[in-house]
Amino acid sequence: MNKNSKAAAVSMENLLRIFTVPEAPGSTLSRLENDISANLAGFLQDHIVAEETDLVKIERDFSDSLIPEQPVYVSEQAQFLLDKVVAQSVHTSSPSFVGHMTSALPYFMIPLSKIMIALNQNLVKTETSKAFTPLERQVLGMLHRLVYEQPDEFYDRWLHDSHHHLGAICSGGTVANITALWAARNRAFGPDGDFPGITRSGVFAAMRHYGCEGMAVLVSERGHYSLSKAADVLGIGRDQIVAVETDGQNRIRPDALRAKLKQLQQQNIRPFALVGVAGTTETGNIDPLDQLADIAEEHGIHFHVDGAWGAPTLFSERYRGRLKGIERADSVTIDAHKQLYVPMGVGLVLFRDPSALSSIEHHAQYIIRKGSKDLGSATLEGSRPGMAMLVHSALKIIGRRGYAMLIDNGIELAQRFADRIESLDDFELVSAPELNILTYRWVPAQVQAALRDADVARSIEINEVLSRITRIIQKTQRELGKAFVSRTRLTPDRYAHHAITVFRVVLANPLTTDEVLCYVIDEQREIVSTLADSEDFVELARLTSASTD
Amino acid sequence: MNKNSKAAAVSMENLLRIFTVPEAPGSTLSRLENDISANLAGFLQDHIVAEETDLVKIERDFSDSLIPEQPVYVSEQAQFLLDKVVAQSVHTSSPSFVGHMTSALPYFMIPLSKIMIALNQNLVKTETSKAFTPLERQVLGMLHRLVYEQPDEFYDRWLHDSHHHLGAICSGGTVANITALWAARNRAFGPDGDFPGITRSGVFAAMRHYGCEGMAVLVSERGHYSLSKAADVLGIGRDQIVAVETDGQNRIRPDALRAKLKQLQQQNIRPFALVGVAGTTETGNIDPLDQLADIAEEHGIHFHVDGAWGAPTLFSERYRGRLKGIERADSVTIDAHKQLYVPMGVGLVLFRDPSALSSIEHHAQYIIRKGSKDLGSATLEGSRPGMAMLVHSALKIIGRRGYAMLIDNGIELAQRFADRIESLDDFELVSAPELNILTYRWVPAQVQAALRDADVARSIEINEVLSRITRIIQKTQRELGKAFVSRTRLTPDRYAHHAITVFRVVLANPLTTDEVLCYVIDEQREIVSTLADSEDFVELARLTSASTD
Repeated sequence: MNKNSKAAAVSMENLLRIFTVPEAPGSTLSRLENDISANLAGFLQDHIVAEETDLVKIERDFSDSLIPEQPVYVSEQAQFLLDKVVAQSVHTSSPSFVGHMTSALPYFMIPLSKIMIALNQNLVKTETSKAFTPLERQVLGMLHRLVYEQPDEFYDRWLHDSHHHLGAICSGGTVANITALWAARNRAFGPDGDFPGITRSGVFAAMRHYGCEGMAVLVSERGHYSLSKAADVLGIGRDQIVAVETDGQNRIRPDALRAKLKQLQQQNIRPFALVGVAGTTETGNIDPLDQLADIAEEHGIHFHVDGAWGAPTLFSERYRGRLKGIERADSVTIDAHKQLYVPMGVGLVLFRDPSALSSIEHHAQYIIRKGSKDLGSATLEGSRPGMAMLVHSALKIIGRRGYAMLIDNGIELAQRFADRIESLDDFELVSAPELNILTYRWVPAQVQAALRDADVARSIEINEVLSRITRIIQKTQRELGKAFVSRTRLTPDRYAHHAITVFRVVLANPLTTDEVLCYVIDEQREIVSTLADSEDFVELARLTSASTD
Repeated sequence: MNKNSKAAAVSMENLLRIFTVPEAPGSTLSRLENDISANLAGFLQDHIVAEETDLVKIERDFSDSLIPEQPVYVSEQAQFLLDKVVAQSVHTSSPSFVGHMTSALPYFMIPLSKIMIALNQNLVKTETSKAFTPLERQVLGMLHRLVYEQPDEFYDRWLHDSHHHLGAICSGGTVANITALWAARNRAFGPDGDFPGITRSGVFAAMRHYGCEGMAVLVSERGHYSLSKAADVLGIGRDQIVAVETDGQNRIRPDALRAKLKQLQQQNIRPFALVGVAGTTETGNIDPLDQLADIAEEHGIHFHVDGAWGAPTLFSERYRGRLKGIERADSVTIDAHKQLYVPMGVGLVLFRDPSALSSIEHHAQYIIRKGSKDLGSATLEGSRPGMAMLVHSALKIIGRRGYAMLIDNGIELAQRFADRIESLDDFELVSAPELNILTYRWVPAQVQAALRDADVARSIEINEVLSRITRIIQKTQRELGKAFVSRTRLTPDRYAHHAITVFRVVLANPLTTDEVLCYVIDEQREIVSTLADSEDFVELARLTSASTD
């Protein structure tokens, strides 16, 4: 290796060049950009879900742990990314990718994101973000208004008030939920006489001062896993997330909730927050929010709604009633990179009371000084990108009516798909869609009959085989690469709450049609036909014929 | 308003169009993209820092809290962004923007970011990220190796091991620090006999089980504010961040640390983490990491290094010795959007022990199942964008030697600027640069003389006036918009630890030259000349002439 000639490539001059704006439009970099655009357009137009390549094989391209001594050319790295990353990534925006909450992206996000990347603002303080600060506050105000519908005067008063916050923008729903519970915890165990508050003194001193045996957060057993993560992070403990039983529609049971509250009282454990779910991750169901608001009010506890998925349903005049009571929540989580159709990496939490976030406020000398408009004083994160600009753009370009149409479309598509599954004799709808999520599985007619007649023990046996088959179908379909549904485990009433594996379908991509969903079913049937001789099928035949003996 | 014609614009057909890949290259969207690029190039080539417009005036453009009922055209929104956001944002990449850690961006990041935005992968699990997952693990491995220099075999063994993690990528240094302290807390108060561990049982039960009166984290008084935020979030309490005194160079004093440890022991408070700072935010100083490692080892506590700013100094053969001992840390924070020159929104924490993150691991049914390669099991955040792709690109395109050159350049530029300030008779160097950060202020020769002769009371009086003047100079310079230094408050030895306001300069933009820094000083002098009749100057004259009486 000729070290001298290589070393020449890392001159300061070359380094300065990469930090300098290239002269548009004939430059190497703009040519490169055009190549990238063409390649991406090709990739995005290709409506497959993923090229199936074993992860272990892909790992080989990413196994060098040495940072290269010498630089590689931008064009070389771009080619590497196109060949090894783009070609091996998942088409999350494919109409037949209906398995996760990562969905289609409006194409205008690509040019607009460029503004965000190029300006590289840091939202932690106005000195590094200027116009982005009022823009972010406006976005919070717009979504606050969507949820809480306060009058003009409210927003005129609070939108840009430096001592108050209508919410906080963050990297996603998990941080939003943590922020909500953090604020709730700090308010519940605040300063009191000589006690300086949990913020300064911590959980241990707070429990001793308030004379409790512990603190708890209540949520249905269908709550998102980020809540138990939040309980761990916040020093509450995962076991202090009290999982309340749900009804047949995966909604929290108010009677069970009241019983838990009573139990906590007897144990001298203080519940400081109640979380209502607006769109459970697995089945898209909504807790009875109005009833939860009543109970929270009665007990004087913070009422948080995890609307990461479902809150944008408020855009729909037709379906917003399903979220009734959300406007009584003390705080609400919304994920912008889900049903607001913004690129990955932005969520937010709203607070009804503009002073609620003061319980987590912090200041420093060189930054976020008291009374400044710096957004960093009320966020869990420090330095943050200007993602709010993309939320702002989506809200403007799609508009309230556009979102309403997208929401209605997804819910109605899910309803039609559910109807279709119910009409088929070889599939079983497991959870009907309340929003745009449903679960189902393959169960041929004679097995359905056998399950109806089976006792609990036999039913468990049959379901275990079905769960294995469901898993194989889901994995095989993913590997075929043309469609993707996810799978999860549910404990439906009809099978005495024993866990079964199901296909999970999330319908938020407006390009997904009834035909695409027909294809998903057809392909699953085809996969089934290849399994006829498998051990599981033999076992299934044995169990179901035996049951008719 | 003609409601019918407007409503037509929100047809499902139009909505589908925005989710469809436009036909390159003559489409409206690609024309729009070219316009945006040209405008951005213009903005970025303009080497001013910011157009000074009052924030209150800017807020007027962002004051509507209603989400528009009808959509606006993409071109209209793009024009709005260019006029009202781009034009009113801060030129963080300007060579004369030397006030914050938000710095220049290599221009290649703009086309490469497009890949990340368009693919919209979600790193929480492999089903939504595929090749991005091994890529992210490789990036963690590369930076782990930069810090810990383990042999090939180590990385061959652990890099892609699904049950282990060399670190976690997150949105920035704050979440990285929280993650480190979270893991440390959970390991220190882990399962023990019947006690299921702090993860499940929370802080209160842990303190009772372990029979402590509290827990604490030790860090120098110059530690970043994110650490006390972490203490609040994690239920430790802000007051349990024990601030250890520093020496004249803003470095933790090992003797003071030992005294604090002794004191905690007497109070039966258990310190579970010691944080060393590698690049203090205000002055860029580095704690004696090797000594801290000894003390942490001796006391069996987690040793975390906050290298958000300074860790990339390891690239430099010339200066990496200043971080000696960092390789003994249990965990290290690095901000990629600082000295790795990646766009805003990515930091990471590395752990020496690949099993350390197991103390915060979490799983769910539909996602991040046990044994999967899903990265979401060991991150505080849930859904996350593929920013690792940009870190990967920076490491490859800049290379080890490129980074070394950038680091050396910044440190040496800072040294020359410090020498120059010391040679001037109207400025005072307050903190000399150990890395690429320094602080100084304007103090004319006769005031310097007066300060030398003054008693403590008089010195405080003079410094208070000087602090007011420093503040005015800094704000005026910012408003003039050609250069930007930040300001902070420090408590130097020479003024008996009384706080003074200083200019703070961060030199990480390779386009910043000695000439640019000369200009900064010249402009500050000009601002001073306009203040001659101000009250503060009259007061300063009175105080300094009186002192010579």
